[in-house]
Amino acid sequence: MEINEIYETLIEQIEQHISKGEISFLREILTELNVVDTAQIMEELADKNRLTVFRVLPKDISAEVFSYLEPDTQADIVRMITDAELERLLDEMFLDDTVDFLEEVPANVVTRVLAHSDPETRKLINRFLKYPEDCAGSLMTIEMVHLQTSLTAAQAIEKIRKTGVDKETVYTCYCIDREHHLLGSVPLLSLLLCDENALVGDIMEDDAQLISVNTLDDREYVVDIVKKYDLLSVPVVDNEKRLVGIITVDDIVDVIEEEVTEDFEKMALLAPSDDEYLKTGIFKLARNRILWLLILMISGTFTGKIIEGYETLLAGFVALTASMPMLMGTGGNAGSQVSTLIIRGLAVGEIEIKDYLKIVWKELRVASICGLVLGAANILRMYLFSEGTLEVFLVVSLAMFCAIVVAKLIGCSLPIFAKIVKLDPALMAGPMIATLVDIVTLVIYFGLAKAFLL
Amino acid sequence: MEINEIYETLIEQIEQHISKGEISFLREILTELNVVDTAQIMEELADKNRLTVFRVLPKDISAEVFSYLEPDTQADIVRMITDAELERLLDEMFLDDTVDFLEEVPANVVTRVLAHSDPETRKLINRFLKYPEDCAGSLMTIEMVHLQTSLTAAQAIEKIRKTGVDKETVYTCYCIDREHHLLGSVPLLSLLLCDENALVGDIMEDDAQLISVNTLDDREYVVDIVKKYDLLSVPVVDNEKRLVGIITVDDIVDVIEEEVTEDFEKMALLAPSDDEYLKTGIFKLARNRILWLLILMISGTFTGKIIEGYETLLAGFVALTASMPMLMGTGGNAGSQVSTLIIRGLAVGEIEIKDYLKIVWKELRVASICGLVLGAANILRMYLFSEGTLEVFLVVSLAMFCAIVVAKLIGCSLPIFAKIVKLDPALMAGPMIATLVDIVTLVIYFGLAKAFLL
Repeated sequence: MEINEIYETLIEQIEQHISKGEISFLREILTELNVVDTAQIMEELADKNRLTVFRVLPKDISAEVFSYLEPDTQADIVRMITDAELERLLDEMFLDDTVDFLEEVPANVVTRVLAHSDPETRKLINRFLKYPEDCAGSLMTIEMVHLQTSLTAAQAIEKIRKTGVDKETVYTCYCIDREHHLLGSVPLLSLLLCDENALVGDIMEDDAQLISVNTLDDREYVVDIVKKYDLLSVPVVDNEKRLVGIITVDDIVDVIEEEVTEDFEKMALLAPSDDEYLKTGIFKLARNRILWLLILMISGTFTGKIIEGYETLLAGFVALTASMPMLMGTGGNAGSQVSTLIIRGLAVGEIEIKDYLKIVWKELRVASICGLVLGAANILRMYLFSEGTLEVFLVVSLAMFCAIVVAKLIGCSLPIFAKIVKLDPALMAGPMIATLVDIVTLVIYFGLAKAFLL
Repeated sequence: MEINEIYETLIEQIEQHISKGEISFLREILTELNVVDTAQIMEELADKNRLTVFRVLPKDISAEVFSYLEPDTQADIVRMITDAELERLLDEMFLDDTVDFLEEVPANVVTRVLAHSDPETRKLINRFLKYPEDCAGSLMTIEMVHLQTSLTAAQAIEKIRKTGVDKETVYTCYCIDREHHLLGSVPLLSLLLCDENALVGDIMEDDAQLISVNTLDDREYVVDIVKKYDLLSVPVVDNEKRLVGIITVDDIVDVIEEEVTEDFEKMALLAPSDDEYLKTGIFKLARNRILWLLILMISGTFTGKIIEGYETLLAGFVALTASMPMLMGTGGNAGSQVSTLIIRGLAVGEIEIKDYLKIVWKELRVASICGLVLGAANILRMYLFSEGTLEVFLVVSLAMFCAIVVAKLIGCSLPIFAKIVKLDPALMAGPMIATLVDIVTLVIYFGLAKAFLL
C-alpha cells in the first residue's frame, strides 16, 4: 500500500503545479522519478494534465515513458500531439517498442504513425508487423551492436561508445561477416578485460558455442533457451543465418508471464485472451467462457443417463444418492491434483513423454495410499453423520477408493496423451478431468452397489 | 527431440573416449560445449565417467558446470573428490552458487564443504544459510563491483578490469561510502560512454532514483520490482542501508518459475513442494495431497445431508437426480473460470482489492449471459435426451442459471476475501470453489423444485 500512497501524493503535487502553471517545479519532480513510475502516474492523470507532463519531459525520457504506457493511453497521446511532436517521439523510440505499441492501438492511430515515420523506419515497422504474434521475430529489437571480427578490442569499445544504444542491448555484442551472417558473440566485459589490441575475431565465442534462434521460432522455445542458458540476450537470425535482431531478457520475463497466464486460462477452460480482465467487455468475457461450459454441460448427458438407469437402486438406498456429490467431488479433486503436477512438469521440462509408464506406476501407488486413507475416513464420517447400513458405507468407501485410483490414472494420462497428439496439455486440467472422472466413477459406483446391495 | 539426439551422440562419444583413455579428444569435445550442456550431459553419465569429465575440465569451467548440476550429483561429486580438489572447487565457485548447493545436500556433505572453506568464506556461508529461504538475502550474491564516488570513469573501468567478476554481476556497479552505505548506481555503459575523467559520483544515478531491496524482503516483492523496472540486477541492503549483495535477473527468472509452480500447486490444493515430481517418493506425494482431499471430502457431508432431506422429492422425479452431477459440474466449472482470472489478476497486479465492487458488477452481467445461453441449451438437451416433463426441464435450467450466477459471485469473491485476510488467493481456486458451489447449488435446486413441482 505504501507505494500507492507515494503515487497519490505525487499525483496531487503534480496536479497542483500544473494548475498553478509552475512548470519548473513540475520538471523538478519528474526528473527525480524512474520512467516506470512516471508512466504509472501518467495513467492516473486527466488527459490534459497527462499531455502537459508528456511535454515537460525531456524528449528521450518522454519516449521511454511512452513505451511503458497502456495502449489506450498511448493512442490518446498520439491523437493529441502535433505532427512535429509525433515525429520526434518516433525518432527517439526503440523500434521494438514502436512495434509493440502499433500492435495494440486502433488502425487510425497506426496510419498516422506510419505516415510520420521516415521511409526506412516504415519499411522496418511493416516487416515487423508481419511476423506472427507468437514468434521470435515479433519479440526482437534491431537496436544492437554489430562488430566486424577484424576490429581490435579498443576499436570495438570506441564503436560501442559512438553507437551508444540502450544498455540492455549492448552487453553482448554480435560479430558478423560482410553478408551479415552471424559469426559469434562477445560480451562487453570480455572487450574490457582483454588486451586492448586483441582482435574481436580472436576473443569472440564462436559458432560452436553460440546460441541463436530463428525469426519464426515459437516464443516459448526462445524462453526455454534464455532460461536454460541464463542469457541476457539471444541473437535472432533469418533462414539464411543472417543476424536480424536480438531478444533481451526483460522481454523474456514478460513473455513468461503471458505464457503462464495462458496456461492458467486453458486449465480453467477459458479461451486465452491477452486483455486485462478489468478492461474486457462483458460479452467478450462471456464468449471466452461459454464454449467449454457448454461442451462439459452437454457431456453431463452421460452421467444423467447412467443415473436414470439405476433409478430403482437409488430409490432403495438414500445414502447412495446422498453420497454422489461427495464421491464425484473427491474423484475430481484427486484427478485435478495429479493433472496439475503433470501439466506443470511438462511445461518446465521436468517430465517427458517417455516417463509415462514410470508416472503411471507411481500414481497407482500414491492413489492406493490416498484411497485407503480417504476410504477409511469416509466410513467413520458416514457412521457418524449418515443414515444407512454398514454395507452401504462400505460400498461408498470402496467406490471412493476406485474413484481415486481412476482419477489419478486419468489425471496423469490425459496431459501426456495431449502432448503426444500435439494438443496443449494445459487443456487437460481440473474441469476436463472432473467431467470424465464423474462418468467413470458413477459406472463403478453403481456396479459395486448392484453387486453388494441387491 | 533433436537436442536429445545431439546429447545422446555426445554421450556416446564421451564414453568411448574415456574407455579408450583418449583424454585429449575428450577435452576437445568438452571445450566446445556450453557449461549448461556439459552439466546436462554429466547427469547422464555413470559415476566414474562423470568424475573423469569433471577432472578434465579446466578449474574455472568445472566450478561453473558444478553449479548447474542437480543436488544429488553435486553431493556425489563432493564425496568422490580429494580434499585439494574440493578446496579448488570452492575457491572458484560463486558464493551464491555454493550456498544454493549447500541448501540442498545432506548434512555430512555440508560439514565436509565447510571444513574445507577458508574461515572468511565459512563465516559468509553461515550467514547466508541463516536467511529465511523465501527472502532476498537467500537469493543474493556478494560478487559485485563497489565503486567509490571519488574515482574517475577511467579508474572505475580499471577497477572492474582488475576485479574481473562474472559478466552478469558487473553491468551495473554500485557506489558506496566508507561505511558501505549504498549511494547510487552506475551502469557499466555509462562509464564507457562518459568522458573518462568524469567522476563516478557525478555520473551515478543517485538515491532518489535508486531501487534497492532489503535482505529480509520477500522474494515475490523482489520479483515484482525487477519486472516492473526491467532491471538486470537489484542491490540488496541491510537494515542500516549498507550494501550487502545484489540479485541478478537470471535468478529472478528461476524464482518466477518456482512461484508459478507454487501457485499451480495451491490452486489444485496440493501442499507446495520444491521437489521434482519424478524424484519425490510416493509417501511424500500422498501426504502432499491427502489433507485437502480429506477436508473437502468431509465437507461433502453437507451435500449429503441436503439430499437426504429431499428424499421423497427426488424419488418422484428421476430427472432431478439425473441432473445433479451436470448441474454441480457446470457450477463448479463456471466458478473455477472466474476464480482463476481473479487469482491471476491479483498475482500480476492487474486487479486490486479496491476493484471488488466493479468485479462483482461485471461478473453479475457475465454470469447472466452465460446462464441464459446454458439454460436455453439445457432445455434443448433435456428435451432430446432426458425423461421427464417440461416443468422439470425448466426447473433444471432455472437452477442452472442460478448456479452459474452464484458460482461466478463466489468465484470472484473468495480470492479477494483471501487477499484481504492475508491468505494466499491461490487457495481459492477450482476445487475449493466447486465444493462451496455444490452446497449452494443444491439448496437452490431443491428449493426451486419444491416450489414449482410439488
